[in-house]
Amino acid sequence: MAQKLVIALGGNALQSGNGPATAEAQLEVVRKTCEHIAEISERGYEVAVVHGNGPQVGRILLASETAKDVTPAMPFDVCGAMSQGYIGYHLQQALKYALNKRNKNTPVVTLATQMVVEAADPAFQNPTKPIGPFYSEEEAKQLAADKGYTMKEDAGRGWRRVVPSPLPRKIVEIDAVKRLWDSTIVITCGGGGVPVMENPDGTLEGVAAVIDKDFAAELLAEQVEADALMILTEVEKVAINFNKPNQENLSSLNLADAARYCEEGQFAPGSMLPKVQAAMKFVRANPNKKAIITSLDKAIDALEGRTGTVITFA
Amino acid sequence: MAQKLVIALGGNALQSGNGPATAEAQLEVVRKTCEHIAEISERGYEVAVVHGNGPQVGRILLASETAKDVTPAMPFDVCGAMSQGYIGYHLQQALKYALNKRNKNTPVVTLATQMVVEAADPAFQNPTKPIGPFYSEEEAKQLAADKGYTMKEDAGRGWRRVVPSPLPRKIVEIDAVKRLWDSTIVITCGGGGVPVMENPDGTLEGVAAVIDKDFAAELLAEQVEADALMILTEVEKVAINFNKPNQENLSSLNLADAARYCEEGQFAPGSMLPKVQAAMKFVRANPNKKAIITSLDKAIDALEGRTGTVITFA
Repeated sequence: MAQKLVIALGGNALQSGNGPATAEAQLEVVRKTCEHIAEISERGYEVAVVHGNGPQVGRILLASETAKDVTPAMPFDVCGAMSQGYIGYHLQQALKYALNKRNKNTPVVTLATQMVVEAADPAFQNPTKPIGPFYSEEEAKQLAADKGYTMKEDAGRGWRRVVPSPLPRKIVEIDAVKRLWDSTIVITCGGGGVPVMENPDGTLEGVAAVIDKDFAAELLAEQVEADALMILTEVEKVAINFNKPNQENLSSLNLADAARYCEEGQFAPGSMLPKVQAAMKFVRANPNKKAIITSLDKAIDALEGRTGTVITFA
Repeated sequence: MAQKLVIALGGNALQSGNGPATAEAQLEVVRKTCEHIAEISERGYEVAVVHGNGPQVGRILLASETAKDVTPAMPFDVCGAMSQGYIGYHLQQALKYALNKRNKNTPVVTLATQMVVEAADPAFQNPTKPIGPFYSEEEAKQLAADKGYTMKEDAGRGWRRVVPSPLPRKIVEIDAVKRLWDSTIVITCGGGGVPVMENPDGTLEGVAAVIDKDFAAELLAEQVEADALMILTEVEKVAINFNKPNQENLSSLNLADAARYCEEGQFAPGSMLPKVQAAMKFVRANPNKKAIITSLDKAIDALEGRTGTVITFA
């Protein structure tokens, strides 16, 4: 039986940190990323890909808000759906090519994906994720009054809208993902999925929120009964005492130790912390399976046990 | 055996002609559209949906170009991919709800879809489709020099970029569409598909072009061996002598008559002509099958033979 693998791609898999934020520059990075994913597929793994969208959806929103006197600004959920089309298109184009080069004819497809979040999620009481352009204090107060936005002052740089980051609860399009799984590489839950809420009448409704893509990938991995969740980021291994003289890179990490390190504040919120938490959630739900955190170029080595941080139940 | 149906949705299925061009207004129209599609599905048809994207991709490009000093402008192929995410998200959300209301649990999903076009297509010698903002003559000449754009004067309103409208040749993601067909309603080839060319080395490359969504739907219908191609537009029937005192609405149309009417110039280019041509192409390739042109609210009646224009081989 082929090993089933859900891969979560971090921002560095889509855009270089210091290059221009153009679509052309993204495609160049994506092409390199897809060589690694194709390599994993060639080794016999069945793969689904989840990607982040932070910089991309931010720029789509920024363009939309900047041009709002020329053409109506798009709501944030729609910006998220646009970013899935944009990033998914590049990934599927580049991955198909990388597979063809290896004489693999595996279909690759991007699914527009909605993710149900819950109104009762405590994140809605405390929006923390800044999105869109900076405003003056006056503009910010006007927007808060006119549109009900939550606006916060951002480190002396001006005011920005903040939205909540609730946990992903249900992948609306999961049936299609399962249906395609054994024949097709599916790119899904892009940017964590387009956040929607279920109304009492059964309608879904887009909400302005940011879903962590690592938690989305974790939920996907649970639902497709993946053998492993692999979270790719900029570092080869998770570390404690990060960037200190006594930094220690971890080759393995069990739930108990991971929980203790989280309590100690070893992992940066919004960065390594959600990755470790998503990995913990996966092995807690699947005590016989593993999660791996490593870098894109070490992915194969980590899958074959030579590097990376392997998170296990015990 | 369920009848297999490819439905091509015209612009009026997504946005009302005189309402605001907001995402919220689109969603309202889309919800009504999806009631009709759900109704068709409930009657036992297996359905795939192709939609246009003219106004939407135009606005995405306009926002992107307007904001280009704030964030890099997106190439036109990426704008098309974004429009697939945007429109597909609305359609799948609204269609899922309309199906649930009817106690149908059919999965609905949008596939980001690339469409291969050929460099040898004569359309590339004569770009005709205006896209994006208006420019002064001076700006237009600068853009032509800097970026190689073809710029044309647009009826006294200023200068615009024009791109070719080549024929769709190959649906890159067709395998996934086929794989999902019998279980899932697939929204695919949005806006005719994101136009790509095949390079000699096998890479695909996005090109700035506009693909007619009716021809894309026709190609899809051929490839999935659909029983019928249904093109939904604003009128209940195709007419000759349209808007003249001797207007004649057609209930049926065979290939020979259709070809003669096309030669006579009975059908408006960019409007009814490509619909009739796509219908002709489908029945020419499938002499025992039919194409139907009608309006959204008459779709069921037309499927059951009570109205619409049925195009057949003989």
